[in-house]
Amino acid sequence: MKTALDCIPCFTRQALDAARMVSTEASVHEDVARRVLALAAEMDFAQPPPVVGRDIHRIIRAVTGVVDPYRDIKERFTRFALSLYPSLAERVANSDDRLETAVRLAIAGNVIDLGVESDITEEAIERGVEEMLSGRIAGAALEAFRERVAEASDILYIADNAGEIVFDRLLIEELQPTPVTVVVRGHPVINDATRADAEAAGLDGRVEIIDNGSDAPGTVLTDISPECRRRFDRADLVIAKGQGNYETLSEVDREVFFLLKAKCPVIADDIGCETGSIVVAKRGAERPQAAGPLE
Amino acid sequence: MKTALDCIPCFTRQALDAARMVSTEASVHEDVARRVLALAAEMDFAQPPPVVGRDIHRIIRAVTGVVDPYRDIKERFTRFALSLYPSLAERVANSDDRLETAVRLAIAGNVIDLGVESDITEEAIERGVEEMLSGRIAGAALEAFRERVAEASDILYIADNAGEIVFDRLLIEELQPTPVTVVVRGHPVINDATRADAEAAGLDGRVEIIDNGSDAPGTVLTDISPECRRRFDRADLVIAKGQGNYETLSEVDREVFFLLKAKCPVIADDIGCETGSIVVAKRGAERPQAAGPLE
Repeated sequence: MKTALDCIPCFTRQALDAARMVSTEASVHEDVARRVLALAAEMDFAQPPPVVGRDIHRIIRAVTGVVDPYRDIKERFTRFALSLYPSLAERVANSDDRLETAVRLAIAGNVIDLGVESDITEEAIERGVEEMLSGRIAGAALEAFRERVAEASDILYIADNAGEIVFDRLLIEELQPTPVTVVVRGHPVINDATRADAEAAGLDGRVEIIDNGSDAPGTVLTDISPECRRRFDRADLVIAKGQGNYETLSEVDREVFFLLKAKCPVIADDIGCETGSIVVAKRGAERPQAAGPLE
Repeated sequence: MKTALDCIPCFTRQALDAARMVSTEASVHEDVARRVLALAAEMDFAQPPPVVGRDIHRIIRAVTGVVDPYRDIKERFTRFALSLYPSLAERVANSDDRLETAVRLAIAGNVIDLGVESDITEEAIERGVEEMLSGRIAGAALEAFRERVAEASDILYIADNAGEIVFDRLLIEELQPTPVTVVVRGHPVINDATRADAEAAGLDGRVEIIDNGSDAPGTVLTDISPECRRRFDRADLVIAKGQGNYETLSEVDREVFFLLKAKCPVIADDIGCETGSIVVAKRGAERPQAAGPLE
């Protein structure tokens, strides 16, 4: 997905949010703002938004010297999501359709996205859970997803944000005992989940966790590690969470299932749904790519 | 008032809005966006937002060749406001406190501000009228305003937007028979009122209309015509409508009464009120400047 001009106000807001998280110095905020504006003036709009996001957050790290501005807030969301986890797991266990309930809860976790909003409250997350459990699902791919899950033997689950990944655990546990590999970002960017966040979510030891080697808030295939790319090509089911992964993978040459809340009008327009929709969408080839033998 | 870094996302959105109003060409939108970003990267944040706004809208005019992108929408708002005018005038006439009701309705007109929102519906304007008539007034200057109006002999009324100026007419009619001079922008910028908009609002022949000679969406004292500046210094009561006039005049060295809806957090923070507040605020010297004789 290309970057829309409407993404620009969001990039500038995101840059300010991050600058303010790491410094109280007005001069640092201004320096970040000016450099991000200069970058944005020259940006390649043919690239998806996470490529621009990646470059913006590189600037923020360079100016501030802070590698992970969102660390504290990621830990806060992880703690909060873990406090909800037992009751959510119970809701999955007691539901008539465990897979659908787990899908909806995984999407509820996608509310925790500081790329789109400057601040997210615990109340908003709890409200998100109730909304996602009862709302209509857009994207029309839930039944196709169910079929693929039933026949899959090697699932790649591309995670999105810290805290959200606790909600993903509910779905991952429904996908098992089929082997699930969870992909996280290679470096901190916004509040995206890294290996540390996946481990804090309790996924360590339950699934294989691989990091993609990239610092983009999405999955840029030209940017990820060769190993991650191989796993992406070979998995017989790829599940990608959240907007950043949709923006970078919706047009790639293999089948991918996208689970997300469409939080901004640019994404909603691309998907063909209303802003705020609960989305289970399928993109790419009708069948997974033929998998060659592992080396 | 200085420009806040938080104004940047708003500037970029405003530029896009304007570019889209005058052209359906994606390349024109992109060209405007890039130039505005490059300008913003170098901007002087010590200047008030309307100075940056002025420069942005100069770029839009230069790129598109369109002098008044908002002309159609200004005419639409003027027509709509005129359709409301008879019933609003009746509400003023039937109210216990005509001046306060007229002040509240003038502020209701300030909802019509495309500097802050991309789109404003007729329903939002009607809702604004009811909200402004019943809500609490922030800024604590209504009684001081009432006193100044009672003793004024030369009122300068600095208008803000097209359509809004129809609402201003309700207040201007309450201020009369004291002579009122209405100041409009010298050139079209966003949906700010120019002489044509003041005339279309029915003010022609009822008051003196002067334009300020400037193309800023506010009142930049170093930018306005000498005649307008003289009138500003000499008037014994200056009323300034809307955010752009507040941003440019709140720190000048004379008493000014500001009537506006605080539509964004940056303004609300400066005023010391909640976003969305109905504001009647006084700034500047306690008494009007001593007026020298007119030449």
